[in-house]
Amino acid sequence: MPTRPLLIVISGPSGAGKDAVLTRMKELGCPLEYIVTVATRPQRAEERNNVNYHFISRERFQEMIEGNEFLEWANVYGNWYGVPKKPVKQALDKGQDIIVKVDVQGAATIKKLLPQAVFIFLIPPSMEELISRLKQRQTESAFDLALRTKTAEEEETKQLSLFDYIVVNKRDKIDLAVSEIKAIITAEKCRVTPREISL
Amino acid sequence: MPTRPLLIVISGPSGAGKDAVLTRMKELGCPLEYIVTVATRPQRAEERNNVNYHFISRERFQEMIEGNEFLEWANVYGNWYGVPKKPVKQALDKGQDIIVKVDVQGAATIKKLLPQAVFIFLIPPSMEELISRLKQRQTESAFDLALRTKTAEEEETKQLSLFDYIVVNKRDKIDLAVSEIKAIITAEKCRVTPREISL
Repeated sequence: MPTRPLLIVISGPSGAGKDAVLTRMKELGCPLEYIVTVATRPQRAEERNNVNYHFISRERFQEMIEGNEFLEWANVYGNWYGVPKKPVKQALDKGQDIIVKVDVQGAATIKKLLPQAVFIFLIPPSMEELISRLKQRQTESAFDLALRTKTAEEEETKQLSLFDYIVVNKRDKIDLAVSEIKAIITAEKCRVTPREISL
Repeated sequence: MPTRPLLIVISGPSGAGKDAVLTRMKELGCPLEYIVTVATRPQRAEERNNVNYHFISRERFQEMIEGNEFLEWANVYGNWYGVPKKPVKQALDKGQDIIVKVDVQGAATIKKLLPQAVFIFLIPPSMEELISRLKQRQTESAFDLALRTKTAEEEETKQLSLFDYIVVNKRDKIDLAVSEIKAIITAEKCRVTPREISL
């Protein structure tokens, strides 16, 4: 059944393994358009330009901001990172599903712009118990409760209600996380009410 | 991550292959509580009592109605069919996921009682094009439009907006339908906002 393309936003705290999960999905040939983030920080030895990131100068980054070329951008520890709008738009126009990796603040920005995207919160096992506890309390107010708590990890869950799904990236079980993300994509394609993404 | 149990309602027009799909899921060992429907019609040669149906008398069926023992019941071509409440409640209490097979009217009844169940509409390939067309029109009003149409198949889509998901049971591809249902279950278990089922 032909379906509208999905925009999948994968986010989560640092250390959740977002890059590893995306790399594994590429290896497995998951048929998605993987959007490459633009970054101003220096390229590391193990990284490939235009694969891990599009490495550009601060001046070019500034031009891109002024040209409204980003879906989302942020300064992280003094470096600039942005999700370019053009490849997202091109993929949507072709009917191609897209996956975008952003930090939690970035996910919040994209949620405002494209609320019909599919938001997946990837977490490390250390956060599983905390979130499980929040979920057991079961109501939206659990998330309000999290707002009033103090620990760093609970801080991370502030944005939880922005997300549609939580996937735990268990140690040495990356394929389990990948299979859950694939299941989410399959299920989303079976939805009666399609998500309407337009940019 | 421990999650609340799901109640999965599988429905669809007759001829969609609901029984075949459930049988295949059992063969594959999908860990669900399969609720057996109670029926008053005569047992057929190839059927096993308490496996395909619980075959009971009309008198006993009447008692069960009066005792409020059904989640849903209906008369189909002069025979009575009902989904017993007790095994559903027992499985929910144990935290066990449940799958229930009902006709489209039955799904509508369960939707009123337990709106947080997961509703899957299984369709034969002959309906795929019709529903695809409705989905392309993309808004809820597509379903309103279906309400005003005349063909038997379009008639079947009247209830479509009750459902969360559509799965096409393609000829000779039953394992594809089963894998989509499994993906839906996996995805539902990853939802941030859990479904709250109580009976």
